[in-house]
Amino acid sequence: MSGRPQVKISEDLRLCVEFRDVAAAALRISDHVVKTPLIANDELDRILSAKVLLKAETLQTTGSFKFRGALNRVLRMTPAERFGGTVRLYDRATEVRETIGAEIAAATGAVIIPPYDDPDIMAGQGTVALELAEQARERGVSLEMLAVSCSGGGLVAGCAIAMNGASPDTRVFCVEPAGFDDTARSLASGRRESNAPGARSLCDALQVATPGELTFPVNQALLAGAVAVTDDEVRRAMRLAYDLLKLVVEPGGVAPLAAALAGKLDVAGKTVALVLSGGNVDHDTFARCIAV
Amino acid sequence: MSGRPQVKISEDLRLCVEFRDVAAAALRISDHVVKTPLIANDELDRILSAKVLLKAETLQTTGSFKFRGALNRVLRMTPAERFGGTVRLYDRATEVRETIGAEIAAATGAVIIPPYDDPDIMAGQGTVALELAEQARERGVSLEMLAVSCSGGGLVAGCAIAMNGASPDTRVFCVEPAGFDDTARSLASGRRESNAPGARSLCDALQVATPGELTFPVNQALLAGAVAVTDDEVRRAMRLAYDLLKLVVEPGGVAPLAAALAGKLDVAGKTVALVLSGGNVDHDTFARCIAV
Repeated sequence: MSGRPQVKISEDLRLCVEFRDVAAAALRISDHVVKTPLIANDELDRILSAKVLLKAETLQTTGSFKFRGALNRVLRMTPAERFGGTVRLYDRATEVRETIGAEIAAATGAVIIPPYDDPDIMAGQGTVALELAEQARERGVSLEMLAVSCSGGGLVAGCAIAMNGASPDTRVFCVEPAGFDDTARSLASGRRESNAPGARSLCDALQVATPGELTFPVNQALLAGAVAVTDDEVRRAMRLAYDLLKLVVEPGGVAPLAAALAGKLDVAGKTVALVLSGGNVDHDTFARCIAV
Repeated sequence: MSGRPQVKISEDLRLCVEFRDVAAAALRISDHVVKTPLIANDELDRILSAKVLLKAETLQTTGSFKFRGALNRVLRMTPAERFGGTVRLYDRATEVRETIGAEIAAATGAVIIPPYDDPDIMAGQGTVALELAEQARERGVSLEMLAVSCSGGGLVAGCAIAMNGASPDTRVFCVEPAGFDDTARSLASGRRESNAPGARSLCDALQVATPGELTFPVNQALLAGAVAVTDDEVRRAMRLAYDLLKLVVEPGGVAPLAAALAGKLDVAGKTVALVLSGGNVDHDTFARCIAV
C-alpha cells in the first residue's frame, strides 16, 4: 500500500501526548532500558530492493518494547501506589482481562495501568522511534518510512508522535493481523470499528478488539496508512529473521517485516525502518513457524 | 576452573600476530563489518551471580565472526588473486577438506586461505575482542574475564592478542566441546595434542583435530586456561539464549555461555565477557535443542 502523504500536525490539533512527553520519557527510563540495536542486513536489502533498518526491540529487557511504556508509567507513580504484586492468569476465551483488573482495583485500591490507552504508556513506547530516529541520524540515514505492529495502538501512536517531532518526513504505517484490522478499518471509516468475533491469528499479541479511545485520535491524525498480514506471511518473516538475522521474533513482533516481504508496504527503492517489537514466543510455536 | 594468573607478553616473546595487526585489521574491515552489540541481561546476571556482557557475533554479516578474519585476509590479496569462486561441498566422514583445497590450488593456481592458521585471519578475528574492549570501556566496565569458543584456535588467539593490548588485566579462557579438548590438553602438556578419533559433539563448528601450528604458540603464551562443555550443557545454553536473549546461537557459538552456566568458568562476583560467536544452525537441530 502506498498510503496518504506525510501528515503534519496542525497548530490547533491537540493530542493527548506530545513530542516533549516522549523526549521526557526517554530521559526518565534511560538508565533502565536497553538501547536496542538498529540492524541492517545486505541480503534483506537485496530481497526487498530497499535499504532496511530493523529496530530489534526483541533485545529489550523482558524481550519486548512493552517495558518502555510500563516503566515510564510506573516511574510516575508515588511510592504508595507501587507496593506489592501478584500475577493473576486468565483464560482469554472465557474471561475479560479489563474486568478482572477493575475488580482487583476496586477490592484493593490498586492503580490500573492500562496496556496502551494511557498517555504515559504511549510516550514510553514512543521512545522506540525516538531512539531509532537518533540512530538513523547518527548513520546519516534519512528514513522515508517506518512500520510498526498495532494492537491497541499504543506503540504505533507513540512512535508516530516521536517521528513527527524527530523525523517529520518519515511516513508511519501500522501493521495488523488479518482478521484484527480494526485500526485499518477505523482509519478508513473515521470512527473506532471493532473486529468480528471468532477471528484467529498466529499473532497472539495483536488481538485487541477495537482501537484505543486515546490511541486512535493520535493514529488518525498521524498515520500514513495501515496494512494487514496473514499467518503464512508472518511465518515466512519469522523464518527469514531466524535464517538471516539469527533473531527470535514473535509472530506479532514480526508483522512489519512480514508486510514488507509480502509486498504490502511499498518499500522498493526506499530507506525504511521496521520495528521488531518482541521475541516472546513459546518453543513449540517457534519450532513450527521456522520449519519449512 | 580458575586458571593461571594473567599473563603478560614479555619483551622478548615474538608472536606471529601483534596488537597493531589487530588494530590495522579493525581499520581495514570497518566499513564492511557490523559493530555487533554487547548485550547485558539482568536475569542472566542473577543466574550467574556475575556481571555478564555477551558479544553477539551472531548478528555479524554471515551470522558469524568468521567474516572478520576472512575479509581481512581477502582485502590483503591482489586483484589477480581474487577472481571467481565455486563452492565445493564435502563429506566430513570420508574426505579431508585441506586435501581438497590443496588439489584445487595445485590445479588452478588459486590461493589457499586457511580457516585459522594464518596471521591475517587471526588478526581479523581479534577485532571481535578489540571492539568488545572498546564497548566495555565506553560503559565504564573493567573486564576481569573473557571466554571464547575454540576449534583451530584462530578466534581465541586473535582475541587474546587484542585483549593483551587493549585490556591487559582481562584473563582470556577458551572453551572447547568435550571430546575435542585438544587445546586444553595441549596447554597442559606443552605440545600440540590431537583428539582421539571417533568423538562426537553437537558443536559441529568446533571439531578440528589439533591446535593450529600458528595459533597454538599464541594461545600457549596468552590464555589463562581452557575448559570443555558437554552437549547437554550446550543445549541448556542455547535454550537460555532463546528464552532470555531472543537470540539464535549455534552449538559451537554458545560454548562460553554453556561453560559459565555449568560452573566451569569461575565467573561469580566478576565482570565477564562471553563471545556468542555464531548463529548458523539448521532449523531441526535448533528446534530439538530448545525443546525442554
